[in-house]
Amino acid sequence: MAMTGVLRPGHVQIRVLDLDEGVRHYRDVMGMEETGRDEQGRVYLKCWDEIDHASVVLRQADRAGLDFIGFKVLNVKTLNQLEADLKEYGVKTERIPAREMLETGERVRFVVASGHTIELYAEKAPHGNGCGGVNPTPWSPQSERGIAPRRLDHALLYGPNIEEVRKLFVDVLGFTLVEHILTPDGKANQVIFLSCSIKSHDIAFGEFPEPGKLHHCSFLMDSWDHVLRAGDIMSMHKVPVDIGPTRHGVTRGCTIYAFDPSGNRFETFKEDRTPYPDHAPLTWTFDGLVGEGGLDYVQRKLHETFLTVVS
Amino acid sequence: MAMTGVLRPGHVQIRVLDLDEGVRHYRDVMGMEETGRDEQGRVYLKCWDEIDHASVVLRQADRAGLDFIGFKVLNVKTLNQLEADLKEYGVKTERIPAREMLETGERVRFVVASGHTIELYAEKAPHGNGCGGVNPTPWSPQSERGIAPRRLDHALLYGPNIEEVRKLFVDVLGFTLVEHILTPDGKANQVIFLSCSIKSHDIAFGEFPEPGKLHHCSFLMDSWDHVLRAGDIMSMHKVPVDIGPTRHGVTRGCTIYAFDPSGNRFETFKEDRTPYPDHAPLTWTFDGLVGEGGLDYVQRKLHETFLTVVS
Amino acid sequence: MAMTGVLRPGHVQIRVLDLDEGVRHYRDVMGMEETGRDEQGRVYLKCWDEIDHASVVLRQADRAGLDFIGFKVLNVKTLNQLEADLKEYGVKTERIPAREMLETGERVRFVVASGHTIELYAEKAPHGNGCGGVNPTPWSPQSERGIAPRRLDHALLYGPNIEEVRKLFVDVLGFTLVEHILTPDGKANQVIFLSCSIKSHDIAFGEFPEPGKLHHCSFLMDSWDHVLRAGDIMSMHKVPVDIGPTRHGVTRGCTIYAFDPSGNRFETFKEDRTPYPDHAPLTWTFDGLVGEGGLDYVQRKLHETFLTVVS
Amino acid sequence: MAMTGVLRPGHVQIRVLDLDEGVRHYRDVMGMEETGRDEQGRVYLKCWDEIDHASVVLRQADRAGLDFIGFKVLNVKTLNQLEADLKEYGVKTERIPAREMLETGERVRFVVASGHTIELYAEKAPHGNGCGGVNPTPWSPQSERGIAPRRLDHALLYGPNIEEVRKLFVDVLGFTLVEHILTPDGKANQVIFLSCSIKSHDIAFGEFPEPGKLHHCSFLMDSWDHVLRAGDIMSMHKVPVDIGPTRHGVTRGCTIYAFDPSGNRFETFKEDRTPYPDHAPLTWTFDGLVGEGGLDYVQRKLHETFLTVVS
Repeated sequence: MAMTGVLRPGHVQIRVLDLDEGVRHYRDVMGMEETGRDEQGRVYLKCWDEIDHASVVLRQADRAGLDFIGFKVLNVKTLNQLEADLKEYGVKTERIPAREMLETGERVRFVVASGHTIELYAEKAPHGNGCGGVNPTPWSPQSERGIAPRRLDHALLYGPNIEEVRKLFVDVLGFTLVEHILTPDGKANQVIFLSCSIKSHDIAFGEFPEPGKLHHCSFLMDSWDHVLRAGDIMSMHKVPVDIGPTRHGVTRGCTIYAFDPSGNRFETFKEDRTPYPDHAPLTWTFDGLVGEGGLDYVQRKLHETFLTVVS
Repeated sequence: MAMTGVLRPGHVQIRVLDLDEGVRHYRDVMGMEETGRDEQGRVYLKCWDEIDHASVVLRQADRAGLDFIGFKVLNVKTLNQLEADLKEYGVKTERIPAREMLETGERVRFVVASGHTIELYAEKAPHGNGCGGVNPTPWSPQSERGIAPRRLDHALLYGPNIEEVRKLFVDVLGFTLVEHILTPDGKANQVIFLSCSIKSHDIAFGEFPEPGKLHHCSFLMDSWDHVLRAGDIMSMHKVPVDIGPTRHGVTRGCTIYAFDPSGNRFETFKEDRTPYPDHAPLTWTFDGLVGEGGLDYVQRKLHETFLTVVS
Repeated sequence: MAMTGVLRPGHVQIRVLDLDEGVRHYRDVMGMEETGRDEQGRVYLKCWDEIDHASVVLRQADRAGLDFIGFKVLNVKTLNQLEADLKEYGVKTERIPAREMLETGERVRFVVASGHTIELYAEKAPHGNGCGGVNPTPWSPQSERGIAPRRLDHALLYGPNIEEVRKLFVDVLGFTLVEHILTPDGKANQVIFLSCSIKSHDIAFGEFPEPGKLHHCSFLMDSWDHVLRAGDIMSMHKVPVDIGPTRHGVTRGCTIYAFDPSGNRFETFKEDRTPYPDHAPLTWTFDGLVGEGGLDYVQRKLHETFLTVVS
Repeated sequence: MAMTGVLRPGHVQIRVLDLDEGVRHYRDVMGMEETGRDEQGRVYLKCWDEIDHASVVLRQADRAGLDFIGFKVLNVKTLNQLEADLKEYGVKTERIPAREMLETGERVRFVVASGHTIELYAEKAPHGNGCGGVNPTPWSPQSERGIAPRRLDHALLYGPNIEEVRKLFVDVLGFTLVEHILTPDGKANQVIFLSCSIKSHDIAFGEFPEPGKLHHCSFLMDSWDHVLRAGDIMSMHKVPVDIGPTRHGVTRGCTIYAFDPSGNRFETFKEDRTPYPDHAPLTWTFDGLVGEGGLDYVQRKLHETFLTVVS
């Protein structure tokens, strides 16, 4: 089999301080489609080109941040196998029953050393992308509503012990280390970029003293023109922008970092690489993160918020 | 593991009627880098962003076409397993010794029911993409030489018995059927698009009476702007263009089809989908191939050459 | 003064066989804004970034084609001066009263040797582009409705005696010949491209036996990506496409030619030159129109309809 | 006549602290073509799509800045008329003899109230853009050398008394005020954007206590993609970047501001408007310059350097 095991980040549950405000942001500014609300009051949304029921779940809470990120795996057999592998590796797992999340099957949940809650699941009902399955159109009117990212792309999570996390993702979950930024002394990793596919990252972790922090959730844009259009729309809606538009040296991707109304950073991201697991990982020195444009390739400077602001 | 088994089409060996002319096309017009010549007189070239030694091998012959297409697999263990699986499935395989192709390890070769020779291999020495491995640049001057595709993307092969081929690629090699065009009576497949990753196709097969035919080898462009630039450069070099620039309805990709000096069709292609193996395949009716823009989404017409001209 | 005299093509009155069908095309497919209807039943529309009240006026009639094209001039004084100049040159002019066309001042109308009716006018009430005049936004939601051209750009008109027309536009109206395509014998002009600004053409004329014919009205797109998006939308609405997407060698512009429901050709055009009146005109041989890609730079072929199909 | 009087900014003479370093920047990083050196040691360069001999003249000096900006006018008759008009308006003019600048005819020079030296000239020998005049190609290999702007686009100059300068450019030279940013008290202009064509600006002036200062010279890019490519190339050459990539609210243009090795700011600019002289000017409040994204539409913030750093 070619694409096996873990397929992609399929859902993130984001905490927002005010649900209506959060919905307005993700639905009206981002342009995601609201596909459901559950008894807990959570709101489900999907990007236009995603097939499955939802990729973003908003939960109202008194502090912002990420409840968990869930990865879709190939099938139930894979789910069971990965759970067994996790247990064998010494990871404590929990089964969340099917339907606890709308249209979603059983989830295997566990906490990694950085303090983040990770889920695996095999089933989420398809909602469709509005293009049809027979003689499909390439896009449809909703493809242009709001910022209109194509899909949830990845997340960058900050917390301690990312070396342990790296080992778990690589050795147990089958991810590949695609790029890594070294700490100032060059002896450890500051940020690691992990892929379970041929994306430049499906998830990334940054070393940080506080556990369980969200740096950003990232959404995929079609082109650099669409990154600018995203920035225009952010401005029209007075969304606070953190960095960009620019290119990251790391991953080569094009980016705007901005904040949702609760202070959760999000990214509108245009991918520009196709790494494969047989390629050697690319290394960034901590100095290179700044002086060689790792963070902001055009400006070659450090935006201090990159290392310090999380939710 | 997430990306396992077959990773990607890694090399194609193309027959050209005149080697110098062929080299001028692939090196100077396409802008590929010549990375070697072997004792048999074959010329090796790579696209700028490919890491491995070569993706196109030119062999002078008295008729055009494709000698074989080779897929890189994850590692030697995978190669051995896939060979065993092929044999068990009833496929006769042959081992081509390491170094028969420059910088390339042992290859497992077999012929599929459409008459095409397929290879699997696990090792090809890295040549690099000119960007470096520490604090890499996003691109380098050679990224802009000639048409400058990013990589060999896929090939479309024409021959008989593609249903048998589909089964082998899906059941043995782990590919996913991403899209398929039905025959006029709707009872069989006219063209099948198979992926071993999250590309819209890593290989495609079209039903055709003559075995072993090449419809086109496809090269990945960064953007629709780069597809136009490719077309401009084709015109400057009087490369005969077949179709495009336009969008394919099938795969949503943007395209120009043109011919190398020997009459081998090639494509400059901009990808616009990210299918996953858990997504249902998209179906095109034969009428939809024409009237719904499957081939040429903008013009919604059949270019007759699509069904008839091969090498 | 720097921009004086004739400023730009400001309106075209297009004959459509069915008004509702025509409105649906220009309003819903093209995405123009309907800004009024008059007592004669004519429908007025404008492109999103145009300031003035209307640029396209649809009139129901029993044959398709162009009633007239009107150029906005700097002011009333200029209008009077140009009328005097035309009369002195021997051209018979007519004054159309103010308000005969909605929100439009007096028009000076005359017929040129190719049989086309041309108008000059100085006043058309501003309607605005939806972005505001104080701290304006760069675009607004209506910028993305339908194909959404930025403005009426130019028209290509076919008729006899274009050398006489050229002289009148250059000597009396102050246009510049920017490019010209020679007849097969090289002794006369087949098509002339005339600018009153720094656009590659504000109007063009092609030699043709029948007088007063419309080859196409052209609408300006922002980018090559928007030309593709226009083509996608044409396909979604089954608009018959004539040529493209491709680049014209002549003017370098990027193009799709297609037909409105009445058979009037229109163009979605991306400009790629900025000629000035001190630049020597560019010359295309008739053979070059075809073999050097004058019409279709990528394909370097003649689409027969270019020379024969008009309305 | 339609385009008359002043046509465009045709040349700028820029002072650089080290000539070789300056040439390396404008020739090798910007990708301009060196077209000559004169007896004074000045170096002449042109952008790829410019027809005339040179648009940038570098002069080594002990402080950076702009010696003068020269506007090309339609013809010698216009030059004489404009000189007469200037004199009648009370402006002292000086004739610089033909050939004092390579391939350039007589220049009329004068100093405006902001302390800047302005020139008008009618003649500069064509050098060509490398595409030919018969069946021209749309672009040529040199179009892609370095950052490769299409042309010198405009300059923003800082000095006192810009209201007087505005009157002179509008009343005598026939420019149009296209946009203007008000001072904090709203009673005067902080920055004025003046056009002699349908560009969003051919020249702009900002109120500043010191006379004769250069804010930036701007070079036209084809697309937002080319603005990013410019940024990548700046980074590769460690060019210090000031602002961007982003969109200006004012003019809607897309931009990167950066500095040449002598500290002269330059801009790589993508135009996004086509104003005409019959359109009302757009007004920006001083607060809007910041809070409504006048300077940086995406970030809606003031980059302090915009108001303070000049050469």
